[in-house]
Amino acid sequence: MTTTPQSLFATHEATLRQAVEACRSRAYWSAYPEMPSPRAYGETAAADGEAALAAYRDRLFPLDQPGITGTAGGERSPFGFDLGVTYPVSDLDALLAAAKAAMPGWRKAGPDGRAGVCLEILKRLNARSFDIANAVMHTTGQAFMMAFQAGGPHAQDRGLEAVAYGWKAMTDQAPTARWEKPQGKNPPLVMDKRFEVVGRGVGLVIGCATFPTWNGYPGLFASLVTGNAVIVKPGPTAILPLAITVKIAREVLAEAGLDPNLVTLAVGDTIAKDLALRPEVAVIDYTGSTGFGDWLEQNARQAQVYTEKAGVNTVTIDSTDDPKGMVRNLAFTLSLYSGQMCTTTQVFFVPKDGIQAGAERMSFDQVAAALAGGVDKFLSDPERAVEVLGAIQSPATLARIDHAATLGTVVLPSRAIAHPKFPDAQVRTPLILTMDASEEEKYGEELFGPIAIVVKTESTADSLERAARLTRTKGALTAGLYSSDPAVIEQATEAFVEAGVALSVNLTGGVFVNQSAAFSDFHGTGANPAANAALCDLAFVANRFRVVQSRVPAATAA
Amino acid sequence: MTTTPQSLFATHEATLRQAVEACRSRAYWSAYPEMPSPRAYGETAAADGEAALAAYRDRLFPLDQPGITGTAGGERSPFGFDLGVTYPVSDLDALLAAAKAAMPGWRKAGPDGRAGVCLEILKRLNARSFDIANAVMHTTGQAFMMAFQAGGPHAQDRGLEAVAYGWKAMTDQAPTARWEKPQGKNPPLVMDKRFEVVGRGVGLVIGCATFPTWNGYPGLFASLVTGNAVIVKPGPTAILPLAITVKIAREVLAEAGLDPNLVTLAVGDTIAKDLALRPEVAVIDYTGSTGFGDWLEQNARQAQVYTEKAGVNTVTIDSTDDPKGMVRNLAFTLSLYSGQMCTTTQVFFVPKDGIQAGAERMSFDQVAAALAGGVDKFLSDPERAVEVLGAIQSPATLARIDHAATLGTVVLPSRAIAHPKFPDAQVRTPLILTMDASEEEKYGEELFGPIAIVVKTESTADSLERAARLTRTKGALTAGLYSSDPAVIEQATEAFVEAGVALSVNLTGGVFVNQSAAFSDFHGTGANPAANAALCDLAFVANRFRVVQSRVPAATAA
Repeated sequence: MTTTPQSLFATHEATLRQAVEACRSRAYWSAYPEMPSPRAYGETAAADGEAALAAYRDRLFPLDQPGITGTAGGERSPFGFDLGVTYPVSDLDALLAAAKAAMPGWRKAGPDGRAGVCLEILKRLNARSFDIANAVMHTTGQAFMMAFQAGGPHAQDRGLEAVAYGWKAMTDQAPTARWEKPQGKNPPLVMDKRFEVVGRGVGLVIGCATFPTWNGYPGLFASLVTGNAVIVKPGPTAILPLAITVKIAREVLAEAGLDPNLVTLAVGDTIAKDLALRPEVAVIDYTGSTGFGDWLEQNARQAQVYTEKAGVNTVTIDSTDDPKGMVRNLAFTLSLYSGQMCTTTQVFFVPKDGIQAGAERMSFDQVAAALAGGVDKFLSDPERAVEVLGAIQSPATLARIDHAATLGTVVLPSRAIAHPKFPDAQVRTPLILTMDASEEEKYGEELFGPIAIVVKTESTADSLERAARLTRTKGALTAGLYSSDPAVIEQATEAFVEAGVALSVNLTGGVFVNQSAAFSDFHGTGANPAANAALCDLAFVANRFRVVQSRVPAATAA
Repeated sequence: MTTTPQSLFATHEATLRQAVEACRSRAYWSAYPEMPSPRAYGETAAADGEAALAAYRDRLFPLDQPGITGTAGGERSPFGFDLGVTYPVSDLDALLAAAKAAMPGWRKAGPDGRAGVCLEILKRLNARSFDIANAVMHTTGQAFMMAFQAGGPHAQDRGLEAVAYGWKAMTDQAPTARWEKPQGKNPPLVMDKRFEVVGRGVGLVIGCATFPTWNGYPGLFASLVTGNAVIVKPGPTAILPLAITVKIAREVLAEAGLDPNLVTLAVGDTIAKDLALRPEVAVIDYTGSTGFGDWLEQNARQAQVYTEKAGVNTVTIDSTDDPKGMVRNLAFTLSLYSGQMCTTTQVFFVPKDGIQAGAERMSFDQVAAALAGGVDKFLSDPERAVEVLGAIQSPATLARIDHAATLGTVVLPSRAIAHPKFPDAQVRTPLILTMDASEEEKYGEELFGPIAIVVKTESTADSLERAARLTRTKGALTAGLYSSDPAVIEQATEAFVEAGVALSVNLTGGVFVNQSAAFSDFHGTGANPAANAALCDLAFVANRFRVVQSRVPAATAA
């Protein structure tokens, strides 16, 4: 049987409908196994993934796309070696022309057909999760387990979520209708109508250095399923995971009889700005610095621009029934990927008079010390520590750690750890400082990386006021609260709803403030400066397409 | 029983659900009777409406809102007399502060409660349709029947449609969820989550001169239902219909125990620009000139801006089985409200070799003459003609008609008609010109008002190419086609889908290219320069609110 968009829809419809239902119910659901087990991924998958990475190294990445004029590359693993992969560089005019030319055929595949193709791409990506995990690990510095989960199945879930939202939005109205308006004693007016979903133009996905697939897939699949072509522009240090993704997408498109130039890779310096201003580009998805995000919002006026930028995430500590659980939970949050997550907590607000912790009081200094001790203990075994910390992605982050140590009172210095397998990896443990609440000019700016600051406030009310104000002015992707007082919890919930940030309360177990689950947790809200959109909701997809109707008197149509 | 948002939801839930279903099916549905009959509106409704207008005249409009610093007014009926109504002018700081202060309580009413309140406002507006019809008639120049239908029930339907879309989008995810993630042999992770819908800020509705309610209600109700406060800034010549609307909304809000400052009126010179740039303003809805619409899009960067601007609407005539029906239909389109509609056809593309019309051929000149004759005959009885034409709203339109007569070959001159009831009314019949396709610099710019141009093309293929290109470059809200050739219809449908404009094919009966039906026809597409949004779809509502979540381990919540 020939593969068609419709046949792929039939294959994947049940999964799609489950995803749509999960987006509605927000209950737990996942389409792709998150454990890198042989049972889920095959006995040889792990070895195949390592072999795949080895095969990519020191070669030209095989990607046959229009207008190739040269090659570029230069990625280096944060674990301490050059990847040596080069990628074809395509002329932007050729890429854009090919993308536009591919769109009418993609429109005609219809919402169902496009969703079917997207789900097949995701299925193939899932089967290649070990390849992608190795590519993510050795471009971002994530340790393997995280690179597998966040870069593989969790990213695929986020992609599926975008497909589900896009499909739901596109099929929000019937594709055809008979409209029959009564005219009293006269015959009714009868019209036949068609409602066609049309993509806006070319989507541009600008990838980030730390989560190229997790942050890239939502925009890629949201634009693609809604009828747009997509050009993927990876960050220069994390090309490989997205190159593999583009290659797989192109293979699936071609097999389904569609133009593979619906998805292409753009590599090269300064081309993100060039592409972002092109009239053909109608949608832009971006994750990265506030500077470039603001530039896109201000200058790419012809496009719908979705940005995720910097922020200052806070946890307010009022009281806790389980101080050990709290510290254990926060130690993991601070350590995971050396805090190189846009969701990691930077600021802990603690009252100067300390907190109630179960039956005891803990002074401010005791809270800071408990946090420092918890992190130190959690990372005491170097072999285990490197599997959580991973490596530092950027030299700028290394420099930031050193500089941050001069800003306040150090309660836990950052340590370098020798990686047992990768001697040249730059591994660092979290730095923890204390500061007074008056020093907002220091703690109130994003300090990306393993840098945490325990800030001394007047009271929990003061903490909440400061946390909400920081969120409104500097942005935040996450907020946390520890309190055993229901009134404080209610007050904080109200404050953070008004400030527009997702709140996690009393996390002491296996859920962490810096992690969000596809289909249930919205990543970002669009309601504070850290992001102008959420992953994923109707607002993230509804403006990526238009509905264009035609109508004809029913007699004529008959 | 006390009126609450929840009790209003219970009252109106069935209507709301019908509206949601109509938006999905796009079949015929309407909530408000479009005939101004005593049976639907009461035996005294017509007289009451005239009395209401008389009572508003030469007085201060009764509106008790914050920060009143003076009064303004100066509306004049296009039927030839001053209304003499003045309105309170509020200080903008006071209006914005009051709007912001009202929002948290409005958020807490929830999606259901807000929808209930909005439907009650619409019900009250419907009951006052005769008041509003008289106010619309004597600010816009619409004849009574049109002022009643478009300004009353059809506008209310458009408002209800916006409420339905907004409610559907807000309730797209469950308000609460229990999330339970299996952990193999260990106990599952269980979280309780809340998802709260939060408005973006203050909505600003900038009203237009010709359809203050029809074009104003979608933005007003879309912003309001999604949790925003709304400031309504009418055009200076059409304040009264929106002032009545604001007054009714405030009454319903207060009765439901809510802050009436959720809806306020802003009157005064230059305040649209001042308001549009205020940081509190998060959403702007605008209908009017391309100049100010572009200014808003470029400058009101802090807000979501929805604009409907100028365009050049075309009808392509290839062939017809029913030349008389075609001419009759188009004569009505050109005459209705003297063509002062953003949806009226301006350009008719006809091949130089003429068209097949049933068994006959019609030359290009015969097509133009038939159109001219049809309009002339339709408007031959002055008493009937004024009830279709209404009056010319603006002196600029009068001047435009005179100037346009010099642009091409006049096949039907515009005539002034004396209004039997209103001797000072400026009533004009349509001007029809012919021109060569090469003169696009003349016919390819919007000539708002009763001005139609029959353009001579090489062929139908040439017509379609020109119509699609004009749509892409200058924008259009409507496109029409007459053809008895299925291949031409298919080709045109494809061309106009790609150009992004709604197409009406072979209209010869009681449906007109310049009319769109709420719940079935999308008004505008957002896919060409005439509008950046459609009335009404998910994209029109989904960005007016955000979803902010909180989560807490289930044990803590229990």
